[in-house]
Amino acid sequence: MNLNYIVPNEWSIIEEGFNASHVTASESIFSIGNGAMGQRANFEEKYSGKTFQGSYIAGIYYPDKTRVGWWKNGYPEYFAKVLNAPNWIGIDVKINGEDLDLKTSQVSYFKRELNMKEGWLQRSFIAKLQNGIEVKVNSLRFLSLRYNEIGAIKYTVTPLNAEVDIEFNPYIDAGIKNEDANYDELFWEVLSVNPEVRQAFIVSKTLKTNFHVATGMKIQIDKNTVPLDLAYFQNEEPKKITYQYKVSAKQNDAITIVKFGSYVQSMNHEIDKLISHSQYLFDEVSNIGYNQLLEYQKEDWAKIWETSDIVIEGDVKAQQAIRFNIFQLNQTYSGDDARLNIGPKGFTGEKYGGSTYWDTEAYCIPFYMSTKDKSVAKNLLKYRYNHLGKAIENAEKLGFKNGAALYPMVTMNGEECHNEWEITFEEIHRNGAMIYAIYNYLNYTNDFKYVADYGLEVMIGVARFWHQRANFSVEKNKYVILGVTGPNEYENNINNNFYTNYLAKWCIKYAVKNLKKVQKKYPEDYKRIVDKACLTDSEVVAWMQVAELMYFPYSQKHNVYLQQDGFLDKDYITVDKLPKEDRPINQKWSWDRILRSCYIKQADVLQGIYMFENKFTTDEIASHFNFYEPITVHESSLSPCVHSILAAKIDKMDKAYEMYLRTSRLDLDDYNNEVHEGLHITSMAGTWLTIVQGFGGMRTFKNKLSFSPQIPKEWISYSFKINYNETVLKVYKSHSETKFYNETGKAVTIEINGKSHELVTELSL
Amino acid sequence: MNLNYIVPNEWSIIEEGFNASHVTASESIFSIGNGAMGQRANFEEKYSGKTFQGSYIAGIYYPDKTRVGWWKNGYPEYFAKVLNAPNWIGIDVKINGEDLDLKTSQVSYFKRELNMKEGWLQRSFIAKLQNGIEVKVNSLRFLSLRYNEIGAIKYTVTPLNAEVDIEFNPYIDAGIKNEDANYDELFWEVLSVNPEVRQAFIVSKTLKTNFHVATGMKIQIDKNTVPLDLAYFQNEEPKKITYQYKVSAKQNDAITIVKFGSYVQSMNHEIDKLISHSQYLFDEVSNIGYNQLLEYQKEDWAKIWETSDIVIEGDVKAQQAIRFNIFQLNQTYSGDDARLNIGPKGFTGEKYGGSTYWDTEAYCIPFYMSTKDKSVAKNLLKYRYNHLGKAIENAEKLGFKNGAALYPMVTMNGEECHNEWEITFEEIHRNGAMIYAIYNYLNYTNDFKYVADYGLEVMIGVARFWHQRANFSVEKNKYVILGVTGPNEYENNINNNFYTNYLAKWCIKYAVKNLKKVQKKYPEDYKRIVDKACLTDSEVVAWMQVAELMYFPYSQKHNVYLQQDGFLDKDYITVDKLPKEDRPINQKWSWDRILRSCYIKQADVLQGIYMFENKFTTDEIASHFNFYEPITVHESSLSPCVHSILAAKIDKMDKAYEMYLRTSRLDLDDYNNEVHEGLHITSMAGTWLTIVQGFGGMRTFKNKLSFSPQIPKEWISYSFKINYNETVLKVYKSHSETKFYNETGKAVTIEINGKSHELVTELSL
Repeated sequence: MNLNYIVPNEWSIIEEGFNASHVTASESIFSIGNGAMGQRANFEEKYSGKTFQGSYIAGIYYPDKTRVGWWKNGYPEYFAKVLNAPNWIGIDVKINGEDLDLKTSQVSYFKRELNMKEGWLQRSFIAKLQNGIEVKVNSLRFLSLRYNEIGAIKYTVTPLNAEVDIEFNPYIDAGIKNEDANYDELFWEVLSVNPEVRQAFIVSKTLKTNFHVATGMKIQIDKNTVPLDLAYFQNEEPKKITYQYKVSAKQNDAITIVKFGSYVQSMNHEIDKLISHSQYLFDEVSNIGYNQLLEYQKEDWAKIWETSDIVIEGDVKAQQAIRFNIFQLNQTYSGDDARLNIGPKGFTGEKYGGSTYWDTEAYCIPFYMSTKDKSVAKNLLKYRYNHLGKAIENAEKLGFKNGAALYPMVTMNGEECHNEWEITFEEIHRNGAMIYAIYNYLNYTNDFKYVADYGLEVMIGVARFWHQRANFSVEKNKYVILGVTGPNEYENNINNNFYTNYLAKWCIKYAVKNLKKVQKKYPEDYKRIVDKACLTDSEVVAWMQVAELMYFPYSQKHNVYLQQDGFLDKDYITVDKLPKEDRPINQKWSWDRILRSCYIKQADVLQGIYMFENKFTTDEIASHFNFYEPITVHESSLSPCVHSILAAKIDKMDKAYEMYLRTSRLDLDDYNNEVHEGLHITSMAGTWLTIVQGFGGMRTFKNKLSFSPQIPKEWISYSFKINYNETVLKVYKSHSETKFYNETGKAVTIEINGKSHELVTELSL
Repeated sequence: MNLNYIVPNEWSIIEEGFNASHVTASESIFSIGNGAMGQRANFEEKYSGKTFQGSYIAGIYYPDKTRVGWWKNGYPEYFAKVLNAPNWIGIDVKINGEDLDLKTSQVSYFKRELNMKEGWLQRSFIAKLQNGIEVKVNSLRFLSLRYNEIGAIKYTVTPLNAEVDIEFNPYIDAGIKNEDANYDELFWEVLSVNPEVRQAFIVSKTLKTNFHVATGMKIQIDKNTVPLDLAYFQNEEPKKITYQYKVSAKQNDAITIVKFGSYVQSMNHEIDKLISHSQYLFDEVSNIGYNQLLEYQKEDWAKIWETSDIVIEGDVKAQQAIRFNIFQLNQTYSGDDARLNIGPKGFTGEKYGGSTYWDTEAYCIPFYMSTKDKSVAKNLLKYRYNHLGKAIENAEKLGFKNGAALYPMVTMNGEECHNEWEITFEEIHRNGAMIYAIYNYLNYTNDFKYVADYGLEVMIGVARFWHQRANFSVEKNKYVILGVTGPNEYENNINNNFYTNYLAKWCIKYAVKNLKKVQKKYPEDYKRIVDKACLTDSEVVAWMQVAELMYFPYSQKHNVYLQQDGFLDKDYITVDKLPKEDRPINQKWSWDRILRSCYIKQADVLQGIYMFENKFTTDEIASHFNFYEPITVHESSLSPCVHSILAAKIDKMDKAYEMYLRTSRLDLDDYNNEVHEGLHITSMAGTWLTIVQGFGGMRTFKNKLSFSPQIPKEWISYSFKINYNETVLKVYKSHSETKFYNETGKAVTIEINGKSHELVTELSL
């Protein structure tokens, strides 16, 4: 564990005392977002110490020119990047002419709080400037869920030991850069700078992608809660507008600046209406007022928690951690826009520039499906449906034909963004996750119409890909899939990865099954789809031949499917035998050594067994777990959750709990010494899965909702809520009791530990 | 074939007529060098068209900061690069104030000749300037073999249609750049600029590596062969010295500037003596005079051809090609300096920045060993011996211990320069080539003392590497080598590459054999080496266990060793079935598609069979050839020669000749449309092998010199010379005769077509 300064608290993330070396980490941890935009927890006032400034607008990206050492055919030339957006949070402050700057002041008190229950970020401090003036500052900031183009800051300065002149310099600044720009280029062009009375707007657009954004601010200043009608000086630079207010304050006067900020952008508005809509919004929220807007925020977050909270008794750090994970997932993605997705770092950093990975389908969809309305998961599925054309183009670049689709490894707009050949071209199992997500959604919602409307086309494209990607091995008399990288990226260019082959076979069979079902239930949709895809019966027969004759590497001796051909040629030395100084191996070993070792970065065969658990007996699950778990190093944040869930399944609760600990406080305690770059948003969904599917044993195979709750011995009790087809269910588990509540009242049939029950209001076992 | 303008000629490379689109290609093809330095055939006078300027000094390199997309542990941070060196060839010319520039003139006559017999480059042209003046120009340039720090240019301008003022601006310019600089940095710093009377020197040094070079020029001007004692103007810029001479010339006056150029550098001289030694050299060659220096050049090249010429009757293009290959190899490396090696592009371009590849050991050493004194091959071996410490460091970076050595894939100074993980870390077969080269040298020279003095230490380091790199497979009950790239780079991260495993086993056994032999013959050396290496008997036993139990993938069905595990899972579709538009696959296919295809870039299993041919029966050779040749695309310039040699061995002379054609005129006819970047120097040694080992059937296994000459039906006859242990032998083969000559007179035992003969002066079969 590298950091350990977050104060345990059930509902808040708290930092106490000022430590300059924590600033960039806290900027990540205390990030706020509302699904439409997000910000790192940068200070409003000037800070001359080390900081990583970041504001982000959902959906806005830039295709930066790729940087690569050795070019390969098929690499994308551009890499779509999350963009650092214009800054509207800035309020520089001078006290008697000296910059208020925590780096150069004596800080006698400092506290930060991210209130997850209510969705706001507060910072209070007392600082003595070099000129001897001591001030108390309180800042409370939030990004409105109700008006998701608006954020608000209430920033109060109180001089403690003298009468002073305070100068506030609130600004908006569109002269920003990405830290990760490959060629140090600017990604934004400023089109117009528009100061108005006490409010201002800058319109800028992204180069190449032409996203237009009006960034706005509106200012109001109070003294001791009485509004001031101050004159102000207006400073206009080519890419920045600063207003300068001067206020005299007696000792203990509270001078407050309320600053509304806004992003109004062209994905949602006509370009020529950006400013007028911003003006309209500022009028609206000014009428509502800061305080009432904050009340709305509390109400809206309360609604989110109503269907998604997890309560843990007896372990406040575990409680804090799970809420932090749920909170960040909700800050990142609200689910009402099918053009958006969940970036691995959300709105908390620039890294992994492209937004969407298979993380969404494999880890995030179950979370959003269970905690929100089903339209949210549907939007995530439609995101991929809308990218089908690009996925077909992507496959064509790699030599596939006839409508075969290969979804990108990393993307913002459907185009591939990544360029390591062993990942970009070979980590093709991602294609299976697209179909698995539909399957998962159907199991949960029974919304088969989705398949007829959208899903089947995706299934056809993916089935075609697998059919073409496999080849017949005369030697094995089976179809094989050569040259892939599985979920375990510590193996590259391997043959017959069990997980990939299994998914390939399953995808084809599932596509064929759904073809038949759509043909029967929605014949018109069937005709439309088959015509559009030019699909023939003989093609389907050819697919099925590949599926039926798919090869799977298996060891009789160990009674397990092998991760890939030749896996047993490796030295099988369990992780506990690895010297400490060799860990993590991805920082200590050269790549070849990692590749030829037996060590597994993240669940691979076990990922498959987790996803298709109903096809394996508990003994089979256990034999695979016992074979693979001891050689898994979990150097991906997405690994421990799968192992935790399977461990719980096979009654290894100690192992399940150990794995839970690895995932839940990853960012809060900065296990990997990288939280300053941003949070691991997608892996937070894995943490949620660990509790709900792992400890709670929730499953939805074949449209049957089932549970088999267990509890780690370290906890007193836990409970979680899920939204199951418009019904909010709550599961409570202590060492003595297992209870189920139906909060909505519509009866639901659930299976508990293998027995079917009708849950109307409450059940107790 | 992309270019086709080189005029066929037995001893010269000739270009006739001026074509601006050929300039960069001809700059490569007409390159000159003397082992210590080399130059692209850039024009002396200004040229405003497209040109790639390049002058190079042997051994001088710069560690450019690596550029790579995705970093892996173990990658080198710096990439040692061949450096573009200060220019001393420049002579700008003005006629009546207008620049003489072939780009802007009407060129009515243009001829270039690279005379390979005598070692000089001549260019003659008649050009009408925009001012209407017509001039004839003749330039003859050579880099002296006898004074290898000196070059000379005789540049004559004759006005043809008017009396004119001619201005000569000879210069030296140290303000040069590398085209391939990763971060556009300068690699040289100029230390001093020293104009003297009619001669000038610039001392510059390379940044980081601190090579110091004095670049010099000395000028003399004649009118109609009468020396002129002209006043001149001296223009000194921060990194350049230009002298300005003005001469009036009547119609048909021949105004000649003789310019000596020099590089005197700190690898060979004290830094404070660089200028004084340059002055001494200029005095010396001025006394000798340009004409006599050129006579020396002819004498010295005559000596080279005496032991290395190949004569082909009946095919002037083949004759030209093979001499071009021999000529360029001699221009690149003269063999008298163990610090130098043979770069894949020699002194003809910047690409493949690092100088030394396994090309040297696998392809070049046989050429130099057979055409020069044995000290040359010995120097090439000592180059690697001198890098043994660095090779051990390199292996340590990858986790190997106890003195295991891994030679770099690409290097200038012993450090690894390359960073593609699948090559840098996995193409480890190169380590075997180091030992094979010693074996080859011993077979040829019987100089076993080399092993005691140097070779054994290298063998120990490499044997240790293979011992540690292999691991025991419980599954196979054999030692396996996982995660490698073989010579066929169209497969990456494969297991049990036959060639690699074979070499590994052989290296260990050969090391042990030599250990025993040194112990017996040179016990003191043995003690010294074993002590230095801390080698124990038990370690050697452990090595041998790996060698004895090495695994080789084999197919009973096809009766061949398999290139790697799983090779038979591929679709076996022969190259002739590949659509034309898919070739070359490395330009048309994405990398994954290449990897999972059966197509072979260059000889791999066949490379091993070629190297250890005496261990295989002719039937075995044929079955492997027939299995692998049809799926080999030869997209490496190093591939066809091996196939040609084996084809000749198994009596497929048509195939052998087809493969010969692919290699011999690769650059002259620019098969790959890339000659403008430089020549393929190392593959030229492969061309030589094709004739001597392929058609001539020369072998030296077990210190026995043998031949089995055949002749392609397309030729009348051919003959080649080799230098075998201080005896120059000549082999002549026509369709009716096979003759052997001993030009030195010391009797040699040779085997011809399996029968032993004593060759004293001549043998005829």
